[in-house]
Formats: sequence, structure tokens, C-alpha cells
Amino acid sequence: MSFLELLPAKNGEEPTMQFLLEVVEILTSYIRKTFDRSTKVLDFHHPHQLLEGIEGFNLELSDQPESLEQILVDCRDTLKYGVRTGHPRFFNQLSTGLDIVGLAGEWLTSTANTNMFTYEIAPVFVLMEQLTLKKMREIVGWPDGEGDGIFSPGGAISNMYSVMIARYKFFPEVKTKGMAAAPRLVLFTSEHSHYSIKKASAALGFGTENLILLNTDERGRVIPADLEAKVIEGYVPLFVTATAGTTVYGAFDPINEIADICEKYNMWLHVDGAWGGGLLMSRKHRHKLNGVERANSVTWNPHKMMGVPLQCSAILVRERGLLQGCNSMCAGYLFQPDKQYDVTYDTGDKAIQCGRHVDIFKFWLMWKAKVCFYLKAENTEGSFLSALITNVVPIFSYQPQHTNVCFWYIPPSLRSLPDGEERRQRLHKVAPKIKAMMMESGTTMVGYQPQGDKVNFFRMVISNPAATRSDIDFLVEEIERLGHDL
Amino acid sequence: MSFLELLPAKNGEEPTMQFLLEVVEILTSYIRKTFDRSTKVLDFHHPHQLLEGIEGFNLELSDQPESLEQILVDCRDTLKYGVRTGHPRFFNQLSTGLDIVGLAGEWLTSTANTNMFTYEIAPVFVLMEQLTLKKMREIVGWPDGEGDGIFSPGGAISNMYSVMIARYKFFPEVKTKGMAAAPRLVLFTSEHSHYSIKKASAALGFGTENLILLNTDERGRVIPADLEAKVIEGYVPLFVTATAGTTVYGAFDPINEIADICEKYNMWLHVDGAWGGGLLMSRKHRHKLNGVERANSVTWNPHKMMGVPLQCSAILVRERGLLQGCNSMCAGYLFQPDKQYDVTYDTGDKAIQCGRHVDIFKFWLMWKAKVCFYLKAENTEGSFLSALITNVVPIFSYQPQHTNVCFWYIPPSLRSLPDGEERRQRLHKVAPKIKAMMMESGTTMVGYQPQGDKVNFFRMVISNPAATRSDIDFLVEEIERLGHDL
Repeated sequence: MSFLELLPAKNGEEPTMQFLLEVVEILTSYIRKTFDRSTKVLDFHHPHQLLEGIEGFNLELSDQPESLEQILVDCRDTLKYGVRTGHPRFFNQLSTGLDIVGLAGEWLTSTANTNMFTYEIAPVFVLMEQLTLKKMREIVGWPDGEGDGIFSPGGAISNMYSVMIARYKFFPEVKTKGMAAAPRLVLFTSEHSHYSIKKASAALGFGTENLILLNTDERGRVIPADLEAKVIEGYVPLFVTATAGTTVYGAFDPINEIADICEKYNMWLHVDGAWGGGLLMSRKHRHKLNGVERANSVTWNPHKMMGVPLQCSAILVRERGLLQGCNSMCAGYLFQPDKQYDVTYDTGDKAIQCGRHVDIFKFWLMWKAKVCFYLKAENTEGSFLSALITNVVPIFSYQPQHTNVCFWYIPPSLRSLPDGEERRQRLHKVAPKIKAMMMESGTTMVGYQPQGDKVNFFRMVISNPAATRSDIDFLVEEIERLGHDL
Repeated sequence: MSFLELLPAKNGEEPTMQFLLEVVEILTSYIRKTFDRSTKVLDFHHPHQLLEGIEGFNLELSDQPESLEQILVDCRDTLKYGVRTGHPRFFNQLSTGLDIVGLAGEWLTSTANTNMFTYEIAPVFVLMEQLTLKKMREIVGWPDGEGDGIFSPGGAISNMYSVMIARYKFFPEVKTKGMAAAPRLVLFTSEHSHYSIKKASAALGFGTENLILLNTDERGRVIPADLEAKVIEGYVPLFVTATAGTTVYGAFDPINEIADICEKYNMWLHVDGAWGGGLLMSRKHRHKLNGVERANSVTWNPHKMMGVPLQCSAILVRERGLLQGCNSMCAGYLFQPDKQYDVTYDTGDKAIQCGRHVDIFKFWLMWKAKVCFYLKAENTEGSFLSALITNVVPIFSYQPQHTNVCFWYIPPSLRSLPDGEERRQRLHKVAPKIKAMMMESGTTMVGYQPQGDKVNFFRMVISNPAATRSDIDFLVEEIERLGHDL
């Protein structure tokens, strides 16, 4: 069968339905395996192996069309050699898990195949976005959920928005005249903050040297006094990021204390809650973001702690009108002012994108089905995790603030070695070696990295509701099995 | 049934499969209707009507979870009140149509739910992206397909990349020191170019006043002499966009002549082929982009003329290393240099995003099934369209260069009116009135806008392989039916 038999071909309906149902059969089989602990997380191959073609899986784009039967084989192979990010033993990223309702939402989104720029062609999705953003702002704590916001393609872009809007608020003439119209501006963020703040400072024309890194305490939280010390060193202080849930440690910066300093020096306060924002849904844990309602803008990625399929990231802004003012260019072919409906619902001109993928529906659908649960339940537990780690050494002695658990595995050969450079150097190599073996064996996945003066350590993250205590035990045992003889 | 019964719940497999198959039933029913000309393109309601809730369709996020049965009803309603962008009579945007193979690819992508930043968790997709980008560069005409590139969330972001990379090429110190480290830079683009170039100039700190608009001829093509005249007026000329397929007219700027001037003044040449790039696949039409191989960067959106589902946009760069140099921040937790595989395949640090949606698979799958066809066939016909328009007045007398057909409908009441301000003012109101009635009746959709001194005119775009001559006739008849008595 060839694609020429599919719709819009004459009599294409039956072949189309048959083809799609066969695809769905492949996908549902994959979903079953994803949740099955007897399957592997991945079947690792090096790039050159996959490029050479394994068992006939040919990645090259030939000039001959393939039959639909071969297309189905390609689909199967693509899944076979991929990584099961929804597997209960995949602890590798902040975004894990495979939410079934969210997945259904994303399938529908693909089928609707429309664009968020105007109410004209996405009426339902535009309204869903507005209602959901309002709800999120209410949860942040802004009165009546007032303010503004937009869903963007990921937390890095959401953070970039925050810097752009802050600049527009204080120096609106930069939009037309460029950075030459502003004095020398500096931005502040934690030394542990996400690298997207650095990317934004480079892209938007501030320069990374004008992004001042703030010192943190042992748990990775910004020391507010350091902000104040650095604010008064000169230049015009514009913008501070407080991170709610740092990428590696899962630390929460003290927002209230930072907000006090921002008020004093008239700086924009952005809370990067890409990772930790989900805790706002938990009565038990939301105190970690105390003061978030004082922020001028908030990044919150439902695709992380809340388990929404990729991508789903919101930038929320307290003051209405800034997003529009900062970004609007009033393109005549899209945002006609003489439409018959209320054109304030054409939200596309707020974005730095033109076309914008529909990221809202899966989230809206999950909220309808379940997210409200979070508001009442205490099922975003994280701190219990550290208690489970027995044969490993946490990188610090405190309870983690979030579901990140950072630890070294010390192989027997290093246990009697005195602290010092040799031990550090050897320990630095342990995590990469274990990770490499782990990927080869394909049984589980966890990330590692160095940070500051700490040599390579593991960072286990729990954000997958499918992961249980036994899966965490499995990870720890697997690390021990693989690393015992190092 | 509640979401609590779905996977990862114990015994969740059967309810999960049942739920997903019911969703698929809803989606396939929608697909059937999309291609059925006896159905409407949309069932229009004003925002306040949808917000009030129509026939029980409640968009509000309540605090009570809904049953899965209700979730299925929500899915049905969401599609019911949306716009069928794949309908053969939807002519409203540059992206139209519903490609079945592409759709299957997007369903699989959602199910795999992974992230493009590392080979580690997206090995197959990362390789597919690299191979596809290389193929696209070959088609652009760069020797051996050398160069670089990345898929980005839409043409606006791709265009933004081009400006960033150009700045990095000539003034790399801006990355660390900000715009203060560069002289006053100017950018050039057509007065008819896409507004994203303007958005980029604002966002990146150039300022919109430093984006110089170039005059065009009657068909909307840049007049190269105007570029040269404006280059020598002062400031440091950095960057020129040549548009291959303008948004409204579908005009192709003369790339070779612009490239000559860019070489003379050492400026970066970017070709925005978001819309027209697809013609590179056609032996018959690719001459419209003659000279594209001289560009330093090219935007090309497979989600437009090539019918790939939203979103799928590539930024291609001729010189290797610039993307990485411009954007990399070497985040230790993602891009560990001590991984066991060849880490040059970790492409995430080239991006301004961190997490990046998998946009490649649907395109790769379509290419496998069919895109190669374009290389041989002449099925990207466009110029035949203008001949079909009989009862309307094209806004210019030439053949359009692309599948955009721009025209006024002149109602009988205006036909005898002499040319002048009254006629202009009345004609300006015709297209919005017809469009409003068209949306209310829901039978077809087409865009309109003013441009320069031309009052509101329709822009019909053909990019949907499902649209036939009879659909185009239908649109014209519908315009006449609705507008006859205006």
C-alpha cells in the first residue's frame, strides 16, 4: 500500500482508517511495555551503529518512496531503539512518565493540527489557554488571578520572556531603539540557576558578563545578603531570578527575602518555577514558594512535576499589557482589527513566535480529569526519598527540599582511601562509568554531573507517578551491582 | 471510570487500552469528517458564547475531577467547536491540510514523549534530525550538504536564530559583553517580509528602528537598488533577509542580486523560505529561489508548503560551528563531556531552548513515504490558480509567483462607482464583512488584509493537497453569494 491510497485520495477512507489503526496498535503495544518492569528502559546503540542500520532499520532518506507497510516497520523500529521515558525506572530527567490522559490530549491536538495565534482558527484552545493561565495565576496568589501570560515552547523560552518583559517595563524604548537606549543593565541569578537565564542574557543583548551569579548556601539556596552586596556595586540593576526548585539540587531560593531587596532597589523579580512550580498545587509543600505572589513573573512548566507530556510551559506575568506591549507588531494579515469577534482573544501578537503549537489541550484535559486532585491531596511527596538511600552518600546532610536526591556511590576500593585529591579524582570517574554500564545494560537511567567543587555525583529525580519504592531500591541496587568492582 | 484506573494503576492495562481506543474512535471520526465536503469547516461561536458553555461544553476548570466518560465528551466537544484546518475548503493560512502519514508520526512522537536535547534520551530522533537537515542543505545547494542547523518552534524563531548567528559571526563578543560591545548595527528586510524579523530586531536588542525596510516592486519583490542605496547611508550593515515567498503576495525576492550586494558590503544573507522553501523540492519551480545557495542561513518550514503537521521549521546555517558558538553554555547536568558515546550528537546546546519538542519524526516519516516524490514530480503547481479567478479582481495583473492569490471582490453596488476615496473606503469594508458572514455560515475560510496603499483584499492560499479546482470555485462562488448585496 502506498500513501497515494490514503485520504485525500478517492476511496481513501478505508485505507486511511486501516493504516491509522495499525499505527495505534504499535503505539498501544509500546505503552504496555513502557509500564512493564520486565522490559528494558532502553536498548542502547552508539550513533555509528544506528547510522549503519541495525536489523534493516534504515535511517537514511532515500529517493524511493516506501510502502505503508514499511512505514509501519519504521514506526516500530523508531520506538524499539528509543528510550522509554515513561518507564518506572527512568529517573534521568525532570520530565518523566507517560500520562495517559495527557497522551490522549496530545493525540487530539495533533489531529486538530491548528495554531494558537488567533481565536479565528483555534477558538476552543485559545479560551482553554486563557482560563488555565488565569487559574495558574490564582494559584500563584495574584488577586483574582489578574495578570497575563502565555504558553511557550519550554522553560528556557519562558525565562527569556521574563527578561524581555522586565526590560520593556523599565526601558520600553529598547524595543524601537535597541540596547543603546538603555544604561548598562545587570541581571542577577543564582549560581545554581538554570542555564537558560544565561542563554537569555546572551541572546537579548545584555551579555553573559552582565548576568551576576549569586552565591548559595550548602543546600543550593541563594544567600540574599549576597544579592544586596552585589546590587550596590554599580550599574543599573534590572532583574533578579529566584529559582523555585533548582535543576540539580532541587533547592528553593528564599523568595520573600529576595523580594524585599527587589522592592528596595526597584528590580523585576522573576521566579523560575519551571521545576518546582508544581508544588504550588500541594497544600503541604507550597510553603517552599512562599512569597511567589510578590514576583513580577513566574515560569511554571506543567510538563515537569505535573507530568504533562512535552511541551507545556507557562510564563505568567503580574502586570497586564506588558507582554503585548513588548512583543506586538500588529501584523495586518493575522491580527485584523476589523474582525467580527472580540479581537482581544487573538493572543498571538503577545508571543515572540508567530505560529504557536497548541500546548494547552493536554494540560486542560489532565486538569479536568485529575489535576484538581493535587489541590487537596498531598501526593507530591518528595522529602521521603532521601531516607531510602542507604548504600550511598548524599552530597549534603540535609533533607532535600524537592524530589531531587543527589549522592555519590563510593565503591569498596575507595572507601578506605583518605580524603584528598586522589580520592576526588577517582570518585569523579565513578558516576560516568556506572552510567555508561547502566545504559549498556538498559535496566534503568539516572543522571550525574559535577557541581561547584563537588565531583561527579548522581542526581536521581522522581517525577513519574509510576515509580514506586521498589523502583528506587532497584536503582540503588543496580548502581551497587555495576559499580562494586570499580 | 476515573483516571485512577488507568496505568500506572494495578490492572490498569485494560482500562487504558479501552480509553485510548475510544479516543482514537473520536479522532478517526473527526478525520473522516475533515475530508468530507458535506461538513462545515467550522461551527462559529463568539468567545462569550463558548465561555458561557454551549450544550454542556464546560471550559471552566472545576475542582472536581471528571470521569473518563466525561473526558471523552470533552474531546468530542473540543473538536466540534474547533476549526477543521484540514478541510479541503480551508484556505485561511499558509499551513493547511491534514497529512495522514505526518499525523501518524505525530501520534508516535507524543507517545515516545522525549526531548531533543541529548542523544542519550532521543538517539533515533537526533540522528533523524541530523540526516534530514543534511538532506535539506544538499537541496539548498551547499556542497555535500555541509553546514549546520536545527529544528525550531516555528519560522519566527528560525528567523530569530538567523539574526543571532549573524551577530555572533561578526561580533562574537556581544555574547559576553552585550550590544554595548558592537557598533550601531542595522538590519535590512523587505517591506513585505514577515513580521518576525521585526520581532527579532526588538527582542535581540537591535531595536525596530534599526531594521530598515526595503522598497518592493509591484509584485512585492525587493528592489535590489534600494538595498544598495540604503546600505551606504551609514551605520554598520549586518544582515539582510531575502524572502522566498512573502506571506501575503507570495513574492520571491531576487536572491542573486541581493547576494551580490551582501558580498560587496560583507553582510550576512538570510533567506526566509518559511513559506517558499518547499519549492526547492520541485524541479520546475526551484528557479524562483535561484541564488539560495549563496545564503548564509535559510529558514524553511516543512509545516507550510510541504504539509507536515504543526510545528516543523528548520533553520539551516552554511557555516558549521556558529550555532554552537553562539548559543552554547555547556550545562554540566545535561551535556557531560565524559559520556560513553560521541557527544557531538548532543545537539541541545546549539539551541536557545533547553527542552525541545521532537518535530523531526513526522517529517522524516513523510519523507520516507512520499516527500522524495516532490524531487521528481511537478506537483507543487501554483501559477495555474490565478486563471481560475473570474468574478474577482486580482490586486495586480501579473501571474502570482506562488500559490497565494490576492484579489478584491467588487460587489455590484461598487462596480459603477468611480475610482476615488469613497470607493476605496467602501471596498475596504467588503472583505471583512464577507469574512464575517463566511465564518458564521462556516462553509469555507479565506484570509484578508490591507497592504500598503491597497485596501482590504482577500488572500487565498493553496497548500492543501485535498483542495481541488471545485473547492476553489466553491470559494469564489461563496464570496459572490455572501457579498453580492453589499
